[in-house]
Amino acid sequence: MESIVEQLSEEESLRLAAGSEVGRIGFTGRYGPIILPVNFRIVDGAVVFRTEADSALVEDLRTGIPDAEYRVAFEVDDIDKAERAGWSVMIQGPAHYLEEAEERAVAEAAGVDPWIGGDKETYISIRPALVTGRRIRRG
Amino acid sequence: MESIVEQLSEEESLRLAAGSEVGRIGFTGRYGPIILPVNFRIVDGAVVFRTEADSALVEDLRTGIPDAEYRVAFEVDDIDKAERAGWSVMIQGPAHYLEEAEERAVAEAAGVDPWIGGDKETYISIRPALVTGRRIRRG
Repeated sequence: MESIVEQLSEEESLRLAAGSEVGRIGFTGRYGPIILPVNFRIVDGAVVFRTEADSALVEDLRTGIPDAEYRVAFEVDDIDKAERAGWSVMIQGPAHYLEEAEERAVAEAAGVDPWIGGDKETYISIRPALVTGRRIRRG
Repeated sequence: MESIVEQLSEEESLRLAAGSEVGRIGFTGRYGPIILPVNFRIVDGAVVFRTEADSALVEDLRTGIPDAEYRVAFEVDDIDKAERAGWSVMIQGPAHYLEEAEERAVAEAAGVDPWIGGDKETYISIRPALVTGRRIRRG
Protein backbone atom coordinates (compact mmCIF):
# COMPACT_ATOMS: atom_id res chain seq x y z
CA MET A 1 0.00 0.00 0.00
CA GLU A 2 1.08 3.53 -0.71
CA SER A 3 1.78 5.84 2.18
CA ILE A 4 0.08 9.21 2.25
CA VAL A 5 1.81 12.04 4.12
CA GLU A 6 -0.36 14.93 5.19
CA GLN A 7 0.93 18.18 6.70
CA LEU A 8 -1.13 19.16 9.74
CA SER A 9 -2.25 22.69 10.56
CA GLU A 10 -0.95 24.38 13.69
CA GLU A 11 -4.38 24.10 15.26
CA GLU A 12 -4.70 20.37 14.52
CA SER A 13 -1.12 19.76 15.68
CA LEU A 14 -1.75 21.43 19.05
CA ARG A 15 -5.05 19.57 19.44
CA LEU A 16 -3.29 16.22 18.92
CA ALA A 17 -0.44 17.16 21.26
CA ALA A 18 -2.90 18.20 23.96
CA GLY A 19 -4.33 14.67 23.96
CA SER A 20 -0.96 13.16 24.91
CA GLU A 21 0.81 13.08 28.22
CA VAL A 22 4.33 12.11 27.21
CA GLY A 23 6.50 14.22 24.90
CA ARG A 24 10.20 14.66 24.27
CA ILE A 25 12.22 17.80 24.82
CA GLY A 26 15.24 18.36 22.59
CA PHE A 27 17.98 20.92 23.08
CA THR A 28 21.73 21.35 22.99
CA GLY A 29 23.23 20.43 26.34
CA ARG A 30 26.77 20.68 27.59
CA TYR A 31 27.75 17.57 25.70
CA GLY A 32 25.76 18.07 22.52
CA PRO A 33 22.16 17.44 21.48
CA ILE A 34 19.85 15.77 23.99
CA ILE A 35 16.36 14.25 23.75
CA LEU A 36 14.50 13.42 26.97
CA PRO A 37 10.94 12.14 27.47
CA VAL A 38 8.85 14.12 29.98
CA ASN A 39 5.26 14.12 31.17
CA PHE A 40 3.53 17.31 30.12
CA ARG A 41 0.27 19.17 29.73
CA ILE A 42 -0.77 21.89 27.33
CA VAL A 43 -1.69 24.82 29.61
CA ASP A 44 -3.04 28.00 28.07
CA GLY A 45 -1.55 27.05 24.70
CA ALA A 46 1.96 26.23 25.99
CA VAL A 47 3.71 22.96 26.84
CA VAL A 48 4.28 22.72 30.62
CA PHE A 49 6.38 20.12 32.39
CA ARG A 50 8.01 19.70 35.79
CA THR A 51 11.50 18.73 36.81
CA GLU A 52 13.75 18.75 39.82
CA ALA A 53 15.45 22.04 40.65
CA ASP A 54 18.92 20.48 40.64
CA SER A 55 18.51 18.30 37.53
CA ALA A 56 20.98 18.37 34.66
CA LEU A 57 18.05 19.43 32.47
CA VAL A 58 17.50 22.58 34.50
CA GLU A 59 21.18 23.45 34.60
CA ASP A 60 21.43 23.05 30.83
CA LEU A 61 18.38 25.19 30.17
CA ARG A 62 19.34 28.12 32.40
CA THR A 63 21.12 30.81 30.46
CA GLY A 64 22.10 32.71 33.60
CA ILE A 65 20.89 35.89 31.93
CA PRO A 66 17.56 37.37 33.11
CA ASP A 67 14.85 37.11 30.41
CA ALA A 68 17.19 35.26 28.02
CA GLU A 69 15.74 31.83 27.22
CA TYR A 70 17.06 28.82 25.35
CA ARG A 71 15.16 27.75 22.29
CA VAL A 72 14.11 24.10 22.46
CA ALA A 73 12.12 21.56 20.46
CA PHE A 74 9.28 19.48 21.86
CA GLU A 75 8.02 16.43 20.01
CA VAL A 76 4.85 14.40 20.53
CA ASP A 77 3.76 11.47 18.42
CA ASP A 78 1.42 8.52 18.25
CA ILE A 79 2.67 5.66 16.10
CA ASP A 80 0.88 2.50 15.04
CA LYS A 81 3.59 0.00 14.19
CA ALA A 82 1.20 -2.61 12.81
CA GLU A 83 -0.33 -0.10 10.39
CA ARG A 84 2.99 1.68 9.78
CA ALA A 85 1.07 4.89 10.30
CA GLY A 86 0.69 7.69 12.83
CA TRP A 87 1.25 11.36 13.47
CA SER A 88 4.00 13.51 14.91
CA VAL A 89 4.04 17.13 16.05
CA MET A 90 7.00 19.40 16.75
CA ILE A 91 6.70 22.55 18.83
CA GLN A 92 9.66 24.93 18.81
CA GLY A 93 9.99 27.81 21.22
CA PRO A 94 11.84 29.26 24.19
CA ALA A 95 12.08 27.32 27.46
CA HIS A 96 10.67 29.56 30.17
CA TYR A 97 10.93 29.02 33.93
CA LEU A 98 7.60 29.64 35.63
CA GLU A 99 8.79 31.75 38.54
CA GLU A 100 6.14 34.41 38.87
CA ALA A 101 3.35 33.56 41.29
CA GLU A 102 0.54 33.99 38.80
CA GLU A 103 1.92 31.88 35.95
CA ARG A 104 3.04 29.28 38.46
CA ALA A 105 -0.43 29.05 39.99
CA VAL A 106 -2.01 28.44 36.55
CA ALA A 107 0.44 25.62 35.84
CA GLU A 108 -0.09 24.05 39.26
CA ALA A 109 -3.85 24.14 38.83
CA ALA A 110 -3.53 22.27 35.52
CA GLY A 111 -2.16 19.27 37.41
CA VAL A 112 0.96 18.34 35.47
CA ASP A 113 1.60 14.92 36.96
CA PRO A 114 5.04 13.34 36.46
CA TRP A 115 5.13 9.53 36.43
CA ILE A 116 8.35 9.60 38.38
CA GLY A 117 8.27 10.80 41.99
CA GLY A 118 10.74 13.19 43.55
CA ASP A 119 10.76 16.86 44.28
CA LYS A 120 9.78 18.13 40.84
CA GLU A 121 9.06 21.66 41.90
CA THR A 122 10.57 23.44 38.90
CA TYR A 123 7.98 24.21 36.21
CA ILE A 124 9.13 24.94 32.67
CA SER A 125 6.91 26.07 29.82
CA ILE A 126 7.51 26.12 26.08
CA ARG A 127 5.45 28.81 24.38
CA PRO A 128 5.09 27.75 20.72
CA ALA A 129 6.96 29.95 18.24
CA LEU A 130 6.57 27.38 15.45
CA VAL A 131 4.31 24.32 15.34
CA THR A 132 4.55 21.70 12.61
CA GLY A 133 2.92 18.32 12.28
CA ARG A 134 2.35 15.52 9.86
CA ARG A 135 0.28 12.41 9.62
CA ILE A 136 1.19 9.25 7.72
CA ARG A 137 -1.53 6.89 6.67
CA ARG A 138 -1.96 4.00 4.26
CA GLY A 139 -3.65 4.79 0.94
CA MET B 1 1.99 2.96 43.62
CA GLU B 2 5.57 4.08 43.82
CA SER B 3 7.53 4.46 40.62
CA ILE B 4 10.88 2.74 40.36
CA VAL B 5 13.47 4.24 38.01
CA GLU B 6 16.23 1.94 36.87
CA GLN B 7 19.27 3.04 34.86
CA LEU B 8 19.92 0.65 31.99
CA SER B 9 23.33 -0.58 30.89
CA GLU B 10 24.65 0.36 27.47
CA GLU B 11 24.19 -3.24 26.33
CA GLU B 12 20.60 -3.45 27.52
CA SER B 13 19.83 -0.02 26.05
CA LEU B 14 21.10 -1.03 22.61
CA ARG B 15 19.24 -4.34 22.80
CA LEU B 16 15.96 -2.52 23.50
CA ALA B 17 16.60 0.05 20.76
CA ALA B 18 17.35 -2.72 18.25
CA GLY B 19 13.86 -4.11 18.82
CA SER B 20 12.23 -0.86 17.67
CA GLU B 21 11.78 0.52 14.18
CA VAL B 22 10.90 4.16 14.92
CA GLY B 23 13.24 6.55 16.71
CA ARG B 24 13.70 10.29 16.86
CA ILE B 25 16.75 12.21 15.73
CA GLY B 26 17.56 15.47 17.51
CA PHE B 27 20.04 18.11 16.43
CA THR B 28 20.45 21.84 16.03
CA GLY B 29 19.13 22.95 12.67
CA ARG B 30 19.24 26.31 10.97
CA TYR B 31 16.35 27.55 13.09
CA GLY B 32 17.20 25.92 16.40
CA PRO B 33 16.74 22.47 17.92
CA ILE B 34 14.78 19.90 15.90
CA ILE B 35 13.33 16.47 16.71
CA LEU B 36 12.15 14.27 13.85
CA PRO B 37 10.86 10.68 13.90
CA VAL B 38 12.54 8.31 11.46
CA ASN B 39 12.44 4.60 10.66
CA PHE B 40 15.74 2.98 11.55
CA ARG B 41 17.65 -0.23 12.08
CA ILE B 42 20.62 -1.00 14.27
CA VAL B 43 23.27 -2.19 11.79
CA ASP B 44 26.62 -3.38 13.10
CA GLY B 45 26.06 -1.51 16.37
CA ALA B 46 25.07 1.82 14.78
CA VAL B 47 21.72 3.50 14.11
CA VAL B 48 21.05 3.63 10.35
CA PHE B 49 18.24 5.54 8.65
CA ARG B 50 17.45 6.76 5.15
CA THR B 51 16.34 10.10 3.85
CA GLU B 52 16.00 12.01 0.60
CA ALA B 53 19.15 13.57 -0.77
CA ASP B 54 17.61 17.04 -0.97
CA SER B 55 15.80 16.99 2.38
CA ALA B 56 16.18 19.78 4.94
CA LEU B 57 17.50 17.11 7.31
CA VAL B 58 20.39 16.29 5.00
CA GLU B 59 21.24 19.94 4.40
CA ASP B 60 21.26 20.62 8.12
CA LEU B 61 23.48 17.65 8.89
CA ARG B 62 26.13 18.32 6.25
CA THR B 63 29.02 20.28 7.65
CA GLY B 64 30.55 20.86 4.23
CA ILE B 65 33.91 19.83 5.66
CA PRO B 66 35.25 16.36 4.72
CA ASP B 67 35.32 14.00 7.74
CA ALA B 68 33.73 16.63 10.01
CA GLU B 69 30.43 15.32 11.36
CA TYR B 70 27.63 16.87 13.40
CA ARG B 71 26.91 15.35 16.73
CA VAL B 72 23.28 14.31 17.10
CA ALA B 73 21.00 12.59 19.60
CA PHE B 74 18.79 9.62 18.78
CA GLU B 75 15.97 8.61 21.10
CA VAL B 76 13.92 5.41 21.19
CA ASP B 77 11.25 4.59 23.73
CA ASP B 78 8.36 2.29 24.51
CA ILE B 79 5.75 3.79 26.81
CA ASP B 80 2.75 2.14 28.41
CA LYS B 81 0.35 4.96 29.23
CA ALA B 82 -2.09 2.76 31.16
CA GLU B 83 0.70 1.50 33.43
CA ARG B 84 2.51 4.85 33.45
CA ALA B 85 5.66 2.86 32.79
CA GLY B 86 8.16 2.17 30.03
CA TRP B 87 11.73 2.64 28.92
CA SER B 88 13.69 5.20 26.94
CA VAL B 89 17.14 5.08 25.40
CA MET B 90 19.29 7.94 24.11
CA ILE B 91 22.18 7.38 21.73
CA GLN B 92 24.55 10.30 21.14
CA GLY B 93 27.13 10.33 18.40
CA PRO B 94 28.22 11.81 15.09
CA ALA B 95 25.92 11.70 12.05
CA HIS B 96 27.85 9.97 9.29
CA TYR B 97 26.91 9.79 5.61
CA LEU B 98 27.33 6.29 4.24
CA GLU B 99 29.10 7.14 0.99
CA GLU B 100 31.72 4.44 0.68
CA ALA B 101 30.62 1.40 -1.30
CA GLU B 102 31.34 -1.10 1.44
CA GLU B 103 29.55 0.62 4.33
CA ARG B 104 26.68 1.46 2.03
CA ALA B 105 26.31 -2.18 0.94
CA VAL B 106 26.11 -3.35 4.57
CA ALA B 107 23.36 -0.82 5.32
CA GLU B 108 21.42 -1.71 2.19
CA ALA B 109 21.59 -5.41 3.02
CA ALA B 110 20.10 -4.69 6.46
CA GLY B 111 16.90 -3.51 4.78
CA VAL B 112 16.18 -0.19 6.45
CA ASP B 113 12.60 0.28 5.29
CA PRO B 114 11.06 3.77 5.56
CA TRP B 115 7.30 3.90 6.03
CA ILE B 116 7.10 6.88 3.72
CA GLY B 117 7.87 6.38 0.05
CA GLY B 118 10.07 8.59 -2.09
CA ASP B 119 13.63 8.51 -3.21
CA LYS B 120 15.30 7.92 0.15
CA GLU B 121 18.70 7.07 -1.22
CA THR B 122 20.78 8.91 1.36
CA TYR B 123 21.88 6.65 4.21
CA ILE B 124 22.98 8.19 7.52
CA SER B 125 24.44 6.31 10.46
CA ILE B 126 24.92 7.34 14.08
CA ARG B 127 27.80 5.47 15.68
CA PRO B 128 27.16 5.55 19.46
CA ALA B 129 29.61 7.66 21.45
CA LEU B 130 27.39 7.60 24.53
CA VAL B 131 24.38 5.38 25.24
CA THR B 132 22.08 5.95 28.21
CA GLY B 133 18.76 4.39 29.11
CA ARG B 134 16.26 4.12 31.88
CA ARG B 135 13.22 2.10 32.73
CA ILE B 136 10.28 3.25 34.84
CA ARG B 137 8.06 0.66 36.46
CA ARG B 138 5.47 0.51 39.19
CA GLY B 139 6.63 -0.76 42.58
